[in-house]
Amino acid sequence: MRLIRSWVDSANAPDGPFPLNNLPCGVFSRGDDPRCGVAIGDFVLDVTALEETGLLDLDGGPYLDVPFWNDLMAAGPATWSAFRDRLQRLLAEGAPDRAAVEPHLVPLAGAILYLPFLVSEYTDFYAGRNHAFNVGSMFRGPENALPPNWLHIPIGYNGRASSVVVSGTEVRRPWGQVKGADHPAPAFQPSRRFDFELELGAVVGTASDGPVTVAEADAMIFGYVLLNDWSARDIQAWEYQPLGPFQAKATATTISPWIVMRAALEPFRTSTPAREVPLLPYLHEPGPMLYDIALEVGLTPEGGTETIIARTNYAEMYYSAAQQLAHHTTSGCPMNTGDLLGSGTISGPTKDSRGSLLELCWGGREPIAIAGGTRRFIEDNDTITLRGHCKGAGFTIGFGACTGKVTPALADPYAR
Amino acid sequence: MRLIRSWVDSANAPDGPFPLNNLPCGVFSRGDDPRCGVAIGDFVLDVTALEETGLLDLDGGPYLDVPFWNDLMAAGPATWSAFRDRLQRLLAEGAPDRAAVEPHLVPLAGAILYLPFLVSEYTDFYAGRNHAFNVGSMFRGPENALPPNWLHIPIGYNGRASSVVVSGTEVRRPWGQVKGADHPAPAFQPSRRFDFELELGAVVGTASDGPVTVAEADAMIFGYVLLNDWSARDIQAWEYQPLGPFQAKATATTISPWIVMRAALEPFRTSTPAREVPLLPYLHEPGPMLYDIALEVGLTPEGGTETIIARTNYAEMYYSAAQQLAHHTTSGCPMNTGDLLGSGTISGPTKDSRGSLLELCWGGREPIAIAGGTRRFIEDNDTITLRGHCKGAGFTIGFGACTGKVTPALADPYAR
Repeated sequence: MRLIRSWVDSANAPDGPFPLNNLPCGVFSRGDDPRCGVAIGDFVLDVTALEETGLLDLDGGPYLDVPFWNDLMAAGPATWSAFRDRLQRLLAEGAPDRAAVEPHLVPLAGAILYLPFLVSEYTDFYAGRNHAFNVGSMFRGPENALPPNWLHIPIGYNGRASSVVVSGTEVRRPWGQVKGADHPAPAFQPSRRFDFELELGAVVGTASDGPVTVAEADAMIFGYVLLNDWSARDIQAWEYQPLGPFQAKATATTISPWIVMRAALEPFRTSTPAREVPLLPYLHEPGPMLYDIALEVGLTPEGGTETIIARTNYAEMYYSAAQQLAHHTTSGCPMNTGDLLGSGTISGPTKDSRGSLLELCWGGREPIAIAGGTRRFIEDNDTITLRGHCKGAGFTIGFGACTGKVTPALADPYAR
Repeated sequence: MRLIRSWVDSANAPDGPFPLNNLPCGVFSRGDDPRCGVAIGDFVLDVTALEETGLLDLDGGPYLDVPFWNDLMAAGPATWSAFRDRLQRLLAEGAPDRAAVEPHLVPLAGAILYLPFLVSEYTDFYAGRNHAFNVGSMFRGPENALPPNWLHIPIGYNGRASSVVVSGTEVRRPWGQVKGADHPAPAFQPSRRFDFELELGAVVGTASDGPVTVAEADAMIFGYVLLNDWSARDIQAWEYQPLGPFQAKATATTISPWIVMRAALEPFRTSTPAREVPLLPYLHEPGPMLYDIALEVGLTPEGGTETIIARTNYAEMYYSAAQQLAHHTTSGCPMNTGDLLGSGTISGPTKDSRGSLLELCWGGREPIAIAGGTRRFIEDNDTITLRGHCKGAGFTIGFGACTGKVTPALADPYAR
């Protein structure tokens, strides 16, 4: 796969995130009503307008007359392909329709970006081998680090869809119930151990109503986003037994504004690692189901300089999104258009490739250096930015940043 | 509070579930398009039609031109009161509008009932003291039965809204990953320990975006339904550590077809039990927040006779729905119209008042007798029916049955 050249010059830069090979799906406005757009070079292409004018005319449409991608997502893989084919024809170097299309390009610089889809339900997994080992080691020692089911089940829990926000949304430090080991009773206070989690989110396109295979699950996935599963470690430690994380994970989950379609990632498929124990047949993968996506995390203090505090790769996961989605359906659980699956924290094997401060600072015991200071957990007004890209021959598939600033906790959460 | 007499004769029976005091909200059809209805005596009143004709004309409406109650639920307590006042006027004995209203009564007997609202997100709690003690005793012994946080936090986890179905929907026994204690590896097989859980569901009417007090939470609740949180105990046992129940609870959750509005339950308010340890102030209740609702569970084998296997009361809960909802918002988690909160299993202190087969049969070790046999867990083609009512002076507030038949597992879940 090589760069597909476009008449949009800025889309041909080898390091630019949005070449014609990418065409990620977002929702944007210039201050007026939000509409569907596709990123191309330094622009957003107003595909809602293209559909209105008839330049984009997909069977069964319109799909883009609403400010979210769910209708197109529900239409399924054949429509997704037709959509990409048509856009690549309209935007390719030498395309005859250039004059008709060009008025619908909006500079990305001035665009306001929104959540690209209506999130139906949100599930978060725990499918990174290094993350699970690191967290388990901290709490139970390295010999008992992995729970007994971990190598057999892509462990997941249901999160809170209402808390999903788009990149750029400020995140307020939560209050919650916490209890120190040496305190007789819990206290209600702002979280002191607020953290990020570097994840990839899979966006479900087509629905299911019964168990699906891994291959069928893969075909249901519309695309991927970067995902930061903000986590209050002190709230989590006190609440999560016996029924799992609840309020610790409910403040916010930030996603990047562009859904990178599965088709754009095809050249970067790679396999999950060798299985340490055999998986049950329903979790067998028919082919490579991960992607080679380079990831990094930046931390920027208020008014300060960004430090890249972790670099890793999505290929570090033990379970793929397709395996997670297949497992999610085993009980007959209906999956719907707009369901969002968090991969679980993506940590590499080395100290500087860990996808959370909990791991980077080993539970707060080993602060990390940043420009102008140190960190154990996130401090007020710190900004966390996740970035990701795939590197092809002469082109890049970028995800767009997933960023959020943590603002101070409310003085009194019950003041009205 | 006494019976409010209606010109609908069947609504005046002292033991009937649907007097004019009740007016629960459902969605029904006679085989045509579903519409909103209110149960009154032996009838459903077609309130969508009442609104169309102008007999029901609420400020800010129409609310009932859709086959779900979410629009009215979102309108808030003043509109809910106006709605009840108007219906009570139209249906009261001697009402001048009787001739105009009567054509919109449909016999309940022939009506098809649907989910009464669009479920936004579903949260299930674990707030019954006896249930938590019973389950904890089975797994950890009576001295460690309650988790350390249990008396401080209304423990909950996020469930799967897509799995919520209306009473009468058949529930297929799920497949899942299970592991016997004496087996070296897990197996993928139909659940052999499929169970019900007797719960009450609170239906969130108005949204919140930040922490709310218990009083504010109470005011957000539109009404209540009976709720059966079907549970695959063998799947749960293997999967639930460390992040909580997932596929074990995702097959189905059945709710009764009528939302009993909070106003109908006001005369039956009762307090949560004395606190065993003080609660943090954010969980303090400004008044009685539970209700005296008599509950029972029936089990009917295919072609057999029903046995009532448990009788208990919602007043057994340690935490109220208002406390649960307040806790749910502490982290800033936005709550939305149509959110459903399961109370947690409602078990009384005695053996015959336990709200699950897990407890009634003590983990399968003590089978219970039913007409014509015994049970440890649910067998194929068994029907489970939850019923509930409040008993006033000369009237009853009924919930309508919450019933579901468990059909055999698929022979091959991956056959298409």
